[in-house]
Amino acid sequence: MQNSESVVTPWEVRGEIDYDELIRQFGVEPLTEDLIVKLERHAGFRHILLRRGMFFAHREFGDWMKSYENGVKATLYTGRGPSGNTHLGHLIPWIFTKYLQDAFDADLYFQLTDDEKYLFNQDLTTEEIAKYTQENILDIIAVGFKPKKTKIFTNLTNSRPLYNIAVKVAKHVTFSTAKATFGFSDSSNIGMIFFPAMQAAPCFLPQYLEGKDSHVLIPCAIDQDPYWRISRDVAPKLGYRKTAGIFSKFIPGLGAGGKMSASMPETAIFLSDTVEQATKKVKNAFTGGQPTIKEQKEKGGDPDACVVYAYLFSLFDEDDASVAETCRACKSGERMCGTCKNRLAEKVAAFLEEHQEKREKAKDIVEDFMLKE
Amino acid sequence: MQNSESVVTPWEVRGEIDYDELIRQFGVEPLTEDLIVKLERHAGFRHILLRRGMFFAHREFGDWMKSYENGVKATLYTGRGPSGNTHLGHLIPWIFTKYLQDAFDADLYFQLTDDEKYLFNQDLTTEEIAKYTQENILDIIAVGFKPKKTKIFTNLTNSRPLYNIAVKVAKHVTFSTAKATFGFSDSSNIGMIFFPAMQAAPCFLPQYLEGKDSHVLIPCAIDQDPYWRISRDVAPKLGYRKTAGIFSKFIPGLGAGGKMSASMPETAIFLSDTVEQATKKVKNAFTGGQPTIKEQKEKGGDPDACVVYAYLFSLFDEDDASVAETCRACKSGERMCGTCKNRLAEKVAAFLEEHQEKREKAKDIVEDFMLKE
Repeated sequence: MQNSESVVTPWEVRGEIDYDELIRQFGVEPLTEDLIVKLERHAGFRHILLRRGMFFAHREFGDWMKSYENGVKATLYTGRGPSGNTHLGHLIPWIFTKYLQDAFDADLYFQLTDDEKYLFNQDLTTEEIAKYTQENILDIIAVGFKPKKTKIFTNLTNSRPLYNIAVKVAKHVTFSTAKATFGFSDSSNIGMIFFPAMQAAPCFLPQYLEGKDSHVLIPCAIDQDPYWRISRDVAPKLGYRKTAGIFSKFIPGLGAGGKMSASMPETAIFLSDTVEQATKKVKNAFTGGQPTIKEQKEKGGDPDACVVYAYLFSLFDEDDASVAETCRACKSGERMCGTCKNRLAEKVAAFLEEHQEKREKAKDIVEDFMLKE
Repeated sequence: MQNSESVVTPWEVRGEIDYDELIRQFGVEPLTEDLIVKLERHAGFRHILLRRGMFFAHREFGDWMKSYENGVKATLYTGRGPSGNTHLGHLIPWIFTKYLQDAFDADLYFQLTDDEKYLFNQDLTTEEIAKYTQENILDIIAVGFKPKKTKIFTNLTNSRPLYNIAVKVAKHVTFSTAKATFGFSDSSNIGMIFFPAMQAAPCFLPQYLEGKDSHVLIPCAIDQDPYWRISRDVAPKLGYRKTAGIFSKFIPGLGAGGKMSASMPETAIFLSDTVEQATKKVKNAFTGGQPTIKEQKEKGGDPDACVVYAYLFSLFDEDDASVAETCRACKSGERMCGTCKNRLAEKVAAFLEEHQEKREKAKDIVEDFMLKE
């Protein structure tokens, strides 16, 4: 994908990402101001993730809102691969999903792909994955979804409805198509090859379980789109609506280049990090600053290359004037990196303390959120 | 497999079959007199399907009996693909399975592969398959299995434990292996490719559900062996015992060549056939007789090429002396085909009447036989 140094697939995001180019290559639509205005009208406010362009592309999001306006049940589907602890990067689509749930009073189907994480990771046991699944569920609940409208499920626990739907999807997907879409080879295991059908199954789970029409929207990071292309191809053959999608960019890791990744723990802020741990990571983050204070004062910094600025901009500084001032003061050489790092560390600390408190409370209400088949 | 005109795979059996050659090619063992004597000792009698060589090969059947003698729980696993009504050919492994259940007081896990039949047949809907599944279950129960020791299940109903096991199997089976074993291609759908993992899953279901050691024996027709080769390869990696197997030949169709097949209904005796229908089919069967009565009297018939004789020999005439006399009288030209056909038609009629009565009674006790997860 993109140029020779960058890769965007459901399993790997690497290199500099040109999001306009991704829109073209994936065949999705840019999220227009018209759509944002309409969404804002339903939600009552414009979410920071919209204002700062973190959600940037979609498939038929306008049609999905139209369905809602016409009285069709609005449903959301998103998910998580439970191969480790949750970090900030995972949270971005979830925060936005909560915004959508509130705006459209939508049912939310939240999938944990415990099977995927077992099939694709040589070293993970099902026991380890089950542990992460339970931990991740607490983070999901802590985001603040509505218990009566949220149905969390896992592929290994809720296999019956999912396998029944997946078999119907799979009948319409040849190995040839799966290979072209996901890059499978002769050495891929046969569970990996089937997995796209399990990943597509929840697109049709609301209709399957409830036996009535609903229009499903998938908020997720753009790298997951190949799965939904398959589900959209198959939907009419099974008599289901095609799912709509709304897609986010990636939040960068704290190091230089690439998205935040659990496989590089020193560059990711985990929701289980202590304030001390998170602060240390922020203090060590890659910035757009110059090598010395002298040079910084003379030449100014580069906010576009700065991870600390990216975090403030994308998620942590809601105040447009403040963000603009940070950008200006950096470029002009008035502000040093330490100031921004301190600011971000404070924001992150406040966020973590609040999240961890909600996470603690989530432990008592897990069952309210689990899918009842 | 075999020579250029014959094929033996889980989906196709065609042409003249050389069973000695199959033993070599599949890498199974011939069922020796020693093993038969031992089995007879446990069962109290030697089953006609053993006496007439219908069960002819095995994998570690001796070890399985040894496990039983050493106090390990004896478990049987066999199955049925519910793509149509049951015919006599399907019944042969089931009748033998009942013999084994009685002999070893064994638990029996009986799988209906409703997913397979959907994935591999372009024209069957899940609704049609569900109907056949219910019908087939009545035939299974009518064979006389012990309700307290028999657990009938279907892949689409009992997907949760099966998918959980199948994922573990699948992680150890590459597309390359599946392709070599089952002949998948780029145009195979991704459900077909995963299916061998679902087929192997019940090998480990008893241990998975009961959480204790048991040794599983699979009585089935020899064409199913490729599935068990995969399950045997994977078993030690998952910490399970390898399954043993005991394999039958095919009962021929009533026409010339090939096994009895539901896709040629005029050559198969269905368990739902009326006595009139079955009688008509027997009367039209392919025999080893000469074109005219005159020639038959002069040259004698050929029992080895005669389907009617095959049925009497394999299943319907328990009396060794009577079978020998039939063979002699045919070869010598004393007996005409009509005599044998009448005899077989009577036997089949009696069998069908008894089966259909048991099948009627089965309707009230289905729930007793279904797997409780």
